[in-house]
Amino acid sequence: MKILIIGGGAAGGTAAQFARKTDRKSEITIIDSESHGQYSRCGLPYALRGMVEDESLVEFSPEWFAKNRIEALYGWKVVSVNFSSRKVYVENDAEKRELEYDKLVIATGARPWAPPIKGMQTGGVFFLRTMDDLKDIKRYAGNISKALVIGAGLIGLESAESLMEMGKEVTVVEFLPGPLLAMFDRDMASMVAETLESSGLNAMYAHQVIEIKGNPVSSAVVENRESGEKKEIETDMVIVATGNIPYTELFDGIEKGPKGHIRVNERSETSVEGVYAAGDCTEFTDAVTGQSVPMGMGTMAVRQGMAAGVNAAGGELEVQPYLGTRTTDLFGVRMAAVGPTEDNIKKSGIEVVSGKYTGADLPEYMPGGKVTVKVIAAKEDGRVLGAQIIGKCAPWKTSMFAEAIAMKDTVRHLSMLETPYSPVIAPTLDPVSIACTMVSMKLRRRR
Amino acid sequence: MKILIIGGGAAGGTAAQFARKTDRKSEITIIDSESHGQYSRCGLPYALRGMVEDESLVEFSPEWFAKNRIEALYGWKVVSVNFSSRKVYVENDAEKRELEYDKLVIATGARPWAPPIKGMQTGGVFFLRTMDDLKDIKRYAGNISKALVIGAGLIGLESAESLMEMGKEVTVVEFLPGPLLAMFDRDMASMVAETLESSGLNAMYAHQVIEIKGNPVSSAVVENRESGEKKEIETDMVIVATGNIPYTELFDGIEKGPKGHIRVNERSETSVEGVYAAGDCTEFTDAVTGQSVPMGMGTMAVRQGMAAGVNAAGGELEVQPYLGTRTTDLFGVRMAAVGPTEDNIKKSGIEVVSGKYTGADLPEYMPGGKVTVKVIAAKEDGRVLGAQIIGKCAPWKTSMFAEAIAMKDTVRHLSMLETPYSPVIAPTLDPVSIACTMVSMKLRRRR
Repeated sequence: MKILIIGGGAAGGTAAQFARKTDRKSEITIIDSESHGQYSRCGLPYALRGMVEDESLVEFSPEWFAKNRIEALYGWKVVSVNFSSRKVYVENDAEKRELEYDKLVIATGARPWAPPIKGMQTGGVFFLRTMDDLKDIKRYAGNISKALVIGAGLIGLESAESLMEMGKEVTVVEFLPGPLLAMFDRDMASMVAETLESSGLNAMYAHQVIEIKGNPVSSAVVENRESGEKKEIETDMVIVATGNIPYTELFDGIEKGPKGHIRVNERSETSVEGVYAAGDCTEFTDAVTGQSVPMGMGTMAVRQGMAAGVNAAGGELEVQPYLGTRTTDLFGVRMAAVGPTEDNIKKSGIEVVSGKYTGADLPEYMPGGKVTVKVIAAKEDGRVLGAQIIGKCAPWKTSMFAEAIAMKDTVRHLSMLETPYSPVIAPTLDPVSIACTMVSMKLRRRR
Repeated sequence: MKILIIGGGAAGGTAAQFARKTDRKSEITIIDSESHGQYSRCGLPYALRGMVEDESLVEFSPEWFAKNRIEALYGWKVVSVNFSSRKVYVENDAEKRELEYDKLVIATGARPWAPPIKGMQTGGVFFLRTMDDLKDIKRYAGNISKALVIGAGLIGLESAESLMEMGKEVTVVEFLPGPLLAMFDRDMASMVAETLESSGLNAMYAHQVIEIKGNPVSSAVVENRESGEKKEIETDMVIVATGNIPYTELFDGIEKGPKGHIRVNERSETSVEGVYAAGDCTEFTDAVTGQSVPMGMGTMAVRQGMAAGVNAAGGELEVQPYLGTRTTDLFGVRMAAVGPTEDNIKKSGIEVVSGKYTGADLPEYMPGGKVTVKVIAAKEDGRVLGAQIIGKCAPWKTSMFAEAIAMKDTVRHLSMLETPYSPVIAPTLDPVSIACTMVSMKLRRRR
């Protein structure tokens, strides 16, 4: 059995590992245009701020793959694929090759997408998607004092925090009216905005960069999307973090979504027999809306990679519908969410009831902080559809909601769950329970 | 409607509050032999070490109840109850009264149980169950240097840590072969024992105190339960934390369990019409074994109190079967569990498969710690039955397992749940997922 995997990132690398675990005899080959082994893209902002060494982001080295009898063609690019003859044509700087496969795993990921800004090709303008990007930015950032980040999503904000820790004066420009709006609804995003502001980050929401000036960059022209007012901001470098587009142009005759993501099922199978796909190049069923959606999350890349690898090698593993569990820590504040935002659930046509509660994260008599919990439920049957949490333990509180969504639990039932309690851990009725109770009561009133 | 509540602790006080919320007109009366209002018993060890003021443990003061038109007879004792005439006879130092009720809530809690040790009545021997106990211990502990704690359960160990923080030399003597054996299986308990040892606590497991000497206490004779060897340990005070027995002797003609706990259903109803019970004086259905079990947990006291109060006042609220979510922090190490221990599940006749995994709590490239996760599943259908976790985020990782047990999820399904991931939060495949995968694989092999 010949298993060919295009892409050696989290999805492709994991597929190779799990194919090897499933079938010790199969011939497994990874084709990767980069040459660093399997490294963590999500770790790039943390290597930028020097929290970890660049090289330590490599989770599985080229040597590791060699030792596990996984051939890795580093520095090779795919030129074309023929699904009917099951052949992949690759090349590097020196030669071309034709590779045969029995099973193919497409894990090509995505590349940064940039809005059409004048001056984008200027020196000092970077993306932060690859190990090479990281090295380029670090080299450049050493001597500069001002940085501008375009995009207040996870990567943009994590990078902005890194640049601040490096002593730069940082401005973030976001097209949408708040930060992290793929993760949070407006009400929760405004709490994130407060955190960012009190941490000294200069953030401009509902603004867009319309021109980058100088070469290397010396300023950016920013436009207020409401008033149309323009402002020129001095900056020595720009990091663009405005999202990604999937690397799937090479693959014809395979079912794709509207933005080019390859559609996969729970076995990570594509519409073409013998061809699997995993990670940022795919779209998959959302657990809440039932729609096929792009995900772009490391959590899913690994799980889809596992399924692609196991199933390609003759095993049996299913990925569960996408929950969208997502989390980060910005300036010491933990935040997490699961399920689509309330706005996105409504757009899908599902009627919802939501509630938000802010309360003490410890019993009132203990010295503690505050946590805010937003819960979204289906108006029809009270099923939990989403949760957004800011405060201590937000990530793992979210895991409880993730399991509730996966198991189709109702807010009423979840509100009575025995949550962990101890004076030094959490109150007897945690804010997660109270938020569920609030939504449950609203649901009863509205029926 | 006259609602009478016997006991003003977490269960009784909560019942009163929720009865009031449910029916604004009912007459609600609490009878309480103490007179501090509703205070947190679980907080007593933390007030002992001075982390909080004694008085701040009072979560709802006598004034609060008065303001909410809940009559509280503080310092009154119940003499007898007549279920058929719906009357409760009470007295205090000065007078006797006869109280009528339409609905009765029994929330009498429990009192400490002590093994038959010679010299138990000696000065300097204490329990830590009430606010008055706390004040007595604090008064006595000021001048002494050595303390002995009998019992290595939650209260015993939390108290021992407090005494150490107060600068005392502390010895803990535990009858069973390890610490926290109501919470953890032996394998996990041995990890707790390591934590205690490295924190400088002198703990003697499989030992029993057979005599307390001196008056006030000057030493205790401790016997090794295996070898029979005896040893005399100098100590200036003793805290006895060897469990509780329910306060239910007064109630005849009501269904009780083998240890005197009043049996309740999911509505917190007892076998007597119009009589509810909640908290440490009750036993209730275990979610895993289906057996009626005593619980003695604040989490359940509050939830049963809610149900008793709501239902007594004509509302509708159900408590879910007991999961036994329990957690603490000992010497900076977080630990939590849910579901019966593996030993107890086996004793109930259910065949299980379990697995334990220790791994990094962050991606390998980040500076982090270790977390150990034990997962127990039913051999028959792979349902999750229990989890025991030691390490960062253990409490809220446990909440995910609590929801899994409540919703009857399988380890195989749970192993693929999208857990929170970010380089600064958790790895893509968290130890909780890996532990589930391990158990899932064992299950497949054993079938």
